Amino acid sequence: MAPTTTAAAAAVAEQQQHTRKALGLAAHDASGHLTPIRISRRNTGDDDVAMKVLYCGICHSDLHTIKNEWRNAVYPVVAGHEIAGVVTEVGKNVERFKAGDNVGVGCMVNTCGACESCRDGCENYCSRIVFTYNSVDWDGTVTCGGYSDMVVVSERFVVRFPAGLPLDRGAPLLCAGVTVYAPMRQHGLCGPGKHVGVVGLGGLGHVAVKFAKAFGMKVTVISTSPGKSQEAVERLGADAFVVSTNASEMKSVMGTMHGIINTASASTSMHPYFALLKPKGKMILVGLPEKPLQIPPFALVGGGKTLAGSCMGSISDTQEMIDFAAEHGVAADIELIGANEVNTAMERLAKGDVRYRFVVDIGNTLKSD
Amino acid sequence: MAPTTTAAAAAVAEQQQHTRKALGLAAHDASGHLTPIRISRRNTGDDDVAMKVLYCGICHSDLHTIKNEWRNAVYPVVAGHEIAGVVTEVGKNVERFKAGDNVGVGCMVNTCGACESCRDGCENYCSRIVFTYNSVDWDGTVTCGGYSDMVVVSERFVVRFPAGLPLDRGAPLLCAGVTVYAPMRQHGLCGPGKHVGVVGLGGLGHVAVKFAKAFGMKVTVISTSPGKSQEAVERLGADAFVVSTNASEMKSVMGTMHGIINTASASTSMHPYFALLKPKGKMILVGLPEKPLQIPPFALVGGGKTLAGSCMGSISDTQEMIDFAAEHGVAADIELIGANEVNTAMERLAKGDVRYRFVVDIGNTLKSD
Repeated sequence: MAPTTTAAAAAVAEQQQHTRKALGLAAHDASGHLTPIRISRRNTGDDDVAMKVLYCGICHSDLHTIKNEWRNAVYPVVAGHEIAGVVTEVGKNVERFKAGDNVGVGCMVNTCGACESCRDGCENYCSRIVFTYNSVDWDGTVTCGGYSDMVVVSERFVVRFPAGLPLDRGAPLLCAGVTVYAPMRQHGLCGPGKHVGVVGLGGLGHVAVKFAKAFGMKVTVISTSPGKSQEAVERLGADAFVVSTNASEMKSVMGTMHGIINTASASTSMHPYFALLKPKGKMILVGLPEKPLQIPPFALVGGGKTLAGSCMGSISDTQEMIDFAAEHGVAADIELIGANEVNTAMERLAKGDVRYRFVVDIGNTLKSD
Repeated sequence: MAPTTTAAAAAVAEQQQHTRKALGLAAHDASGHLTPIRISRRNTGDDDVAMKVLYCGICHSDLHTIKNEWRNAVYPVVAGHEIAGVVTEVGKNVERFKAGDNVGVGCMVNTCGACESCRDGCENYCSRIVFTYNSVDWDGTVTCGGYSDMVVVSERFVVRFPAGLPLDRGAPLLCAGVTVYAPMRQHGLCGPGKHVGVVGLGGLGHVAVKFAKAFGMKVTVISTSPGKSQEAVERLGADAFVVSTNASEMKSVMGTMHGIINTASASTSMHPYFALLKPKGKMILVGLPEKPLQIPPFALVGGGKTLAGSCMGSISDTQEMIDFAAEHGVAADIELIGANEVNTAMERLAKGDVRYRFVVDIGNTLKSD
């Protein structure tokens, strides 16, 4: 349980000064094995919302972090940034929320509020961003995420869950959902008459299909797994399905797409996908392959095409996305699990064995014993 | 002089059916050596503009083509797509031009007019585009460019040169100019308050600096050649200059740029440039390196950054660019040469020894003897 750096040790010492007790699920080393842990939370500040966590989605980032695959873990790590629950208490300056409201918290819990990104409403790119877990907050404590029975978060980083959006199936939208929704909106891939491809049919890809259909677009799923065809079309509502390794299927959709949402984190060969785009088409990269992408310059220059990265979304993006999801009946397809099943779930997630997101039923199952 | 394919042979046979005689400078094989040649041009059709060529810029594409470096040369090649001159005759349907007008012709002389790209005003991405030279036109002939004493071009592909824009220094704008101007406009890198980087200070780069300054932006030139610093700042008006191989200079501008116009065709390592961009910054690729680009995914995803290719510009882009250039006193810095100097010029261009564009004084120097 020893933190890995002196700064981290100081951070954990600070954290212990928090007087409010909470219960979490923590990884203590690179095995990533999760066990219950007592943690502390700050008291509800004037601008804070205290929230009982009911559900928390398991994002692939959680797995990377608890196993220290990104070499930045500060153990013990309490992960989770797809947090849905109910407000229990608000600070005196909080106007938008009151006890009993259904709310959510996503990937970030603090930003500077003053830099160009913050002023321009894209605070998800603030260089002083504090992530929801495994990040040093401004009071020196290391943030703990939603694998926990309660959180205290500044009002600025809390979004409202409208009536009709289920908390369990809505929780994954707070990361997976906004990660695909925000760039679709930013890059104009959000209206009827457009044809969009979705590469990869996992946690991000399956909600990308749903949002794309809700925007009224034609959607083609591009996958390495022929077995996902029926699922993509019949269950998720895609218009078409092509296997990326099948040259004739790929050729059949060549030059037809206004955009592609690329959620794959394995492949780094982008050339075949660019050929599917119309002139001036855009490929949006939301996955993070480990190796450098290989891109023949003519694949971009010849047709005036664009490759755009995108990471999460702003809070206003997130609220807009949640409202849009509630209005159009978009939610994640999930496997709801108990807190005692998280380690098995992590093993399955590592193998890609989940359709399409694990969500932990924190409210009913996270107990101290 | 034998064309390389049967189709090309047929094309040349067709071309010989044109009855109007003209004089050109042609390459006959991969040596790229240029010699005078008799060619034919079509009679002025109802929608055509006949034009006496006065000046023609030498684009690096010309060199690639006459030496068959792109493996698509149909010899004899009469290159040249930065053509400025004066109208001599117009067809009966032509309304926008009359004899005596100063006009220009750039990279393309025909498009389908019906596809999505044509309808959307980006006919430079039409899949049936006919380039100004070395391209099979719809009548089966192979197009001949501006290394020639006259051209006949559909009115649609002719742009007007406003009074005040010199024909010799304006000619290179028809390719080099619009290639950098169009993506600046398309991607919003065209107004005060923006900071833009220009990678590479050659034919494209030096006009990119001028347009960027005319838009009111702060401009930093990024070059591998420390010796170009004074030139960039004092002569071209850049605000700053950094050497791309100097880590501390690069660090000094890290995260400061809204966009980068990358005109380099040598380097394929994009990572150091992405670090110069602000979040949501855009790198525009207008050069064509031969090898695949290597891009670490996080360089794009982490800051929501974009890599966009761009190729030439539409005719409306070109007219807008020419009008803007005339209004703001933008023109290329050129070395004006005689027709008998083109082979020497090509040798110097191959070594990058030109500041910044060769322009052939066709009107005064192209003679048949």
